[in-house]
Amino acid sequence: MQLGMIGLGRMGANIVRRLMRDGHECVVFDTNPDAVAALVAEGATGADSLDDLAGKLSAPRAAWVMVPASITGKVVDQLAAAFESGDAIIDGGNSNYRDDVRRAAALEKSGIDYIDAGTSGGVFGLERGYCLMIGGPDAAVARLEPIFKTIAPGAGEIERTPGRGGDYAPEEQGYLHCGPSGAGHFVKMVHNGIEYGIMAALAEGLNILHNADAGTREAEHSAEIAPLEEPEFYKFDIETPKVAELWRRGSVISSWLLDLTAAALEENHDLDGLAGRVSDSGEGRWTVKAAVDVGVPAPVLAASLFERFASRDEDHYANQLLSAMRLQFGGHTELPTGDVLEAGGRKTDAQG
Amino acid sequence: MQLGMIGLGRMGANIVRRLMRDGHECVVFDTNPDAVAALVAEGATGADSLDDLAGKLSAPRAAWVMVPASITGKVVDQLAAAFESGDAIIDGGNSNYRDDVRRAAALEKSGIDYIDAGTSGGVFGLERGYCLMIGGPDAAVARLEPIFKTIAPGAGEIERTPGRGGDYAPEEQGYLHCGPSGAGHFVKMVHNGIEYGIMAALAEGLNILHNADAGTREAEHSAEIAPLEEPEFYKFDIETPKVAELWRRGSVISSWLLDLTAAALEENHDLDGLAGRVSDSGEGRWTVKAAVDVGVPAPVLAASLFERFASRDEDHYANQLLSAMRLQFGGHTELPTGDVLEAGGRKTDAQG
Amino acid sequence: MQLGMIGLGRMGANIVRRLMRDGHECVVFDTNPDAVAALVAEGATGADSLDDLAGKLSAPRAAWVMVPASITGKVVDQLAAAFESGDAIIDGGNSNYRDDVRRAAALEKSGIDYIDAGTSGGVFGLERGYCLMIGGPDAAVARLEPIFKTIAPGAGEIERTPGRGGDYAPEEQGYLHCGPSGAGHFVKMVHNGIEYGIMAALAEGLNILHNADAGTREAEHSAEIAPLEEPEFYKFDIETPKVAELWRRGSVISSWLLDLTAAALEENHDLDGLAGRVSDSGEGRWTVKAAVDVGVPAPVLAASLFERFASRDEDHYANQLLSAMRLQFGGHTELPTGDVLEAGGRKTDAQG
Amino acid sequence: MQLGMIGLGRMGANIVRRLMRDGHECVVFDTNPDAVAALVAEGATGADSLDDLAGKLSAPRAAWVMVPASITGKVVDQLAAAFESGDAIIDGGNSNYRDDVRRAAALEKSGIDYIDAGTSGGVFGLERGYCLMIGGPDAAVARLEPIFKTIAPGAGEIERTPGRGGDYAPEEQGYLHCGPSGAGHFVKMVHNGIEYGIMAALAEGLNILHNADAGTREAEHSAEIAPLEEPEFYKFDIETPKVAELWRRGSVISSWLLDLTAAALEENHDLDGLAGRVSDSGEGRWTVKAAVDVGVPAPVLAASLFERFASRDEDHYANQLLSAMRLQFGGHTELPTGDVLEAGGRKTDAQG
Repeated sequence: MQLGMIGLGRMGANIVRRLMRDGHECVVFDTNPDAVAALVAEGATGADSLDDLAGKLSAPRAAWVMVPASITGKVVDQLAAAFESGDAIIDGGNSNYRDDVRRAAALEKSGIDYIDAGTSGGVFGLERGYCLMIGGPDAAVARLEPIFKTIAPGAGEIERTPGRGGDYAPEEQGYLHCGPSGAGHFVKMVHNGIEYGIMAALAEGLNILHNADAGTREAEHSAEIAPLEEPEFYKFDIETPKVAELWRRGSVISSWLLDLTAAALEENHDLDGLAGRVSDSGEGRWTVKAAVDVGVPAPVLAASLFERFASRDEDHYANQLLSAMRLQFGGHTELPTGDVLEAGGRKTDAQG
Repeated sequence: MQLGMIGLGRMGANIVRRLMRDGHECVVFDTNPDAVAALVAEGATGADSLDDLAGKLSAPRAAWVMVPASITGKVVDQLAAAFESGDAIIDGGNSNYRDDVRRAAALEKSGIDYIDAGTSGGVFGLERGYCLMIGGPDAAVARLEPIFKTIAPGAGEIERTPGRGGDYAPEEQGYLHCGPSGAGHFVKMVHNGIEYGIMAALAEGLNILHNADAGTREAEHSAEIAPLEEPEFYKFDIETPKVAELWRRGSVISSWLLDLTAAALEENHDLDGLAGRVSDSGEGRWTVKAAVDVGVPAPVLAASLFERFASRDEDHYANQLLSAMRLQFGGHTELPTGDVLEAGGRKTDAQG
Repeated sequence: MQLGMIGLGRMGANIVRRLMRDGHECVVFDTNPDAVAALVAEGATGADSLDDLAGKLSAPRAAWVMVPASITGKVVDQLAAAFESGDAIIDGGNSNYRDDVRRAAALEKSGIDYIDAGTSGGVFGLERGYCLMIGGPDAAVARLEPIFKTIAPGAGEIERTPGRGGDYAPEEQGYLHCGPSGAGHFVKMVHNGIEYGIMAALAEGLNILHNADAGTREAEHSAEIAPLEEPEFYKFDIETPKVAELWRRGSVISSWLLDLTAAALEENHDLDGLAGRVSDSGEGRWTVKAAVDVGVPAPVLAASLFERFASRDEDHYANQLLSAMRLQFGGHTELPTGDVLEAGGRKTDAQG
Repeated sequence: MQLGMIGLGRMGANIVRRLMRDGHECVVFDTNPDAVAALVAEGATGADSLDDLAGKLSAPRAAWVMVPASITGKVVDQLAAAFESGDAIIDGGNSNYRDDVRRAAALEKSGIDYIDAGTSGGVFGLERGYCLMIGGPDAAVARLEPIFKTIAPGAGEIERTPGRGGDYAPEEQGYLHCGPSGAGHFVKMVHNGIEYGIMAALAEGLNILHNADAGTREAEHSAEIAPLEEPEFYKFDIETPKVAELWRRGSVISSWLLDLTAAALEENHDLDGLAGRVSDSGEGRWTVKAAVDVGVPAPVLAASLFERFASRDEDHYANQLLSAMRLQFGGHTELPTGDVLEAGGRKTDAQG
């Protein structure tokens, strides 16, 4: 069938390619004309504005918006102005599901269906397909199922879950209508929250392995911190790139994120050039806030988010306060000179 | 080559089967004669005691101990008494790596090599192979490499990590010599610590999805707890069994533990009959203690462990104390009657 | 000066008493006429409606609203209808500071000043005074300073902070103008977030002491969980009521919450009748969400909140999932029977 | 009565002073002769060796060891050699309670009583007294009660806990016999674990207040991190030094650690010169390990410990790994250049 695509970054462009390969017809638009031209060369119909795109689609229209979350609202509004009752707008970006709820309600008045499609897959999606978590009105989602089916990975060679049989259900093909508007991005949000947790579990564990030689570095220990007890048990020199590769085969924690970790460590054994200031997009934050709202504990997901904040030194003032309190214990009434080490060293003298 | 196997539970027996399939010769012993007989019927040589097993192995002997961690020490000692210099004992169980360090040092005196082989794979290992994390002296580990190679999964159909080429390295075949005695179980310990973290990330995330309908259950909210804010954003009825299945295809969090989750939810949609009192074996605990020892943060791994403790109500006294403090805020000087709800309700009256 | 008080629960009534003792004049209203009558008997002027209260106050009027957060909005609106430009409304309840920001903006149009006064002190406030965290327009807050000064504890006998001298600053007297509308409840919110953290630290620590005899209860340990290592180090029978009392004197952690803990344990040594289902009001939740919003780590505050959720079994589904995954490890393809214990026991047989 | 004191650092010297003020007789030793001379000038009997000290004490002797934990074992051994059956050695330092258990067992053979006295109070102890948590044999602890009573703060002006009456119990006077050898340092260990948690709660909360102006700094937000949602709610410029002072009066979180915080912020409003690399002594670590051992959750105490580790960049490798995984998502196969910001920015393009 026919689909409009707005936003031809890597993901948007690859979704278009995946659709065209499967015989769908795509009308494409991006503010960057080169991005449009590139896909036109591959068989897409180009558009030079949202109005142009709307004009080149047959009713009932369907267009997929794949732009940064910060401008999604504006693009949806403009597109809605060019669309009419019965058309459908799909937001495939990383929007907050709350925006979906609001946008769907607003568009409902003009008869335009709003569908949120949380999309996972990264740059490998062109080949692997994209996992789609979809929210929106039943009829509209059903009408667009051929599109979702093509974008999704399909059943592939993944071993079928025991107990499942017969035709493959949509979720086995990599797309799922999760519920009304917002449900798709809600599920995608939690997916990313889990992603943070898994990434953190791997990173923390490998950090312990990386430091399994602490017993051989004992001389470095200063008065600043508690001495390593029983250093004889921490004299291992573990090669984490090999361990990450090892775990890919037959271990309980084998996972795509482990594959990425092994690839990263193979590519850059010592992680040279990485500052370790870890970004976060909104989903991890929204997940924690959702957990707080509905009152369910999410200490692992929260900890994984907070670790990222701390990696960017957002804990600086808190840590300064802790050092300042410790200086007070020690009775140092002069202004501190920044010599926290010494203050730590004196702790024995005036213990808490 | 030849290997003795002590302990013919599911894992021990399946390792024997995997070895025999690949042409190795196995001498087997278990305190349960039926377990021995079963493998003899499949081609193994049976033994009726550790001494018998030692006698049936040719020097330099090698025997794999696959028994519960609590009796490993005793079995190793008995086996060592029957073995002689040049022989090797492999502990494939879930021992604390500290015990390996101690045992290796003790056995070194008698010239017996001690090898610790952390083994992951669960009941699927017969077909998939077992991921092996190995610690011990170089020469002994090298001598036994044919055994490890057979037990391990091999390269399989897993996509090769970019940048790797040529012959498959041991870690690509699912076994790795991680370092001296203890290194194998150390790596296995951390592996399991990570496993706890990944499991918790999945469980917490799915719990949020499970409660995404909190806004439709608002009437249930009592004075006990903070009311749900903006209930309009929590009216989703998410089918977690379908979501778990969905994420197996193309998503960033696809993983073997997710496969298990999908299987569990497919088998038992509502998790009927599960009390949610989650066991923990030693590795998760040892991992957290190792992190504390070497001084690296592991909040996610620790949180995942503590969640299990809390699932078994080990937080009960702490929670009673919290309620007791809240009663004090409220100025209730009478003995509490257990009506915590009411006390919560009165909180507004005497706010903190 | 003169103040109206709406809401004569324990805190509202005691604030009135504290004001009258210091010579202020109070006009009081509550939907419960008995509560009004009680304070009239002590010297207050009674009102039988908000309009009546407004009529009995002289312009520029000032009224303190001390009602549950859920109805604060309605009361403020009604009061605003009866008030006029130049009057002031003070919200002394536990409102979300975001509501303050919204209400202040709405009232500004009619020239009514809106002041948020986060109030801490519990039932002891009548004697101790109430710690006041105030947000609102400078002029209005300044005009009402005599009221705040009386309600606040004053400098009291608390040792003066080194470096401070001369006249006592407002914060040394227990009230502070923290910033524009919302700032007062924002500071109060964080105060309560910290309160959760401190309570949790005390509860967790005392729980460890309570279980310091684990080594003498070792027989209880089943196959369900990891056995206690080195039980010889956990044979203490610590009397937590005495320890809590002890720490009140000279220790670094002496605090009012510790005083409450000691009182609770003295009153009820074994915490009989407490279910340990810990309530939470909104502030702890809002604090975590604020930390997430501004991107600063708050793992301790979040953990203390999540512990409360878990105490109410909001982790149930997550824990069921963990048990379900563990059953999958074990290869039990039959429906689980709830016998989680056994599954744990078999773990050795099919280890992760 | 008579007491020997070994180790005349600030705490040891002040304990001697406190004892002498109350009429006790002290024999003092330190490797630094000036420290001995200073106390001799104040009335103590000086010793120039442990043997000399033993010789100047009358049997049954009692000596208090107040030296860094790392040399306590050596000093106790030397002292034991100079002591005889019926004498008592008190370890007042921050020893691991496990060492107490071991030392008590070793000394028991020679009839020397070993007492562990966890001591809290910091440099203010000379005036305030020291909170004493005592472990050891009943008879020995009872014999030395006059010493403990003098060192402890006494009942002081602290309001008596409701329900307590009659003579003041030892715990009301600031000392407590907690149990057999090790029990004192066990309780002190948990005390310090709680201290970490309370400090962290205060620091995290004040950090949120410190960043309550995030909405006015929004321009700083780069592509690196999620944009602040609803910046209109984060436009407060909170003066944390005033807030800390405020909370000292009448608030639920008033505490000695808050007093120290207020003092630190008064002394150094902007915490200039503090690097925020927070030391940790052993107790926080041991507390977490004890919680893990006995199987009770301690997420708050653990998080407060891990925050300190992270403040010293012990999370560096973990964070590098997280950034490396994110680079993989983005499909950047070239070696990273450290430009993590850009990678974050491209995230939208290839979302997880």
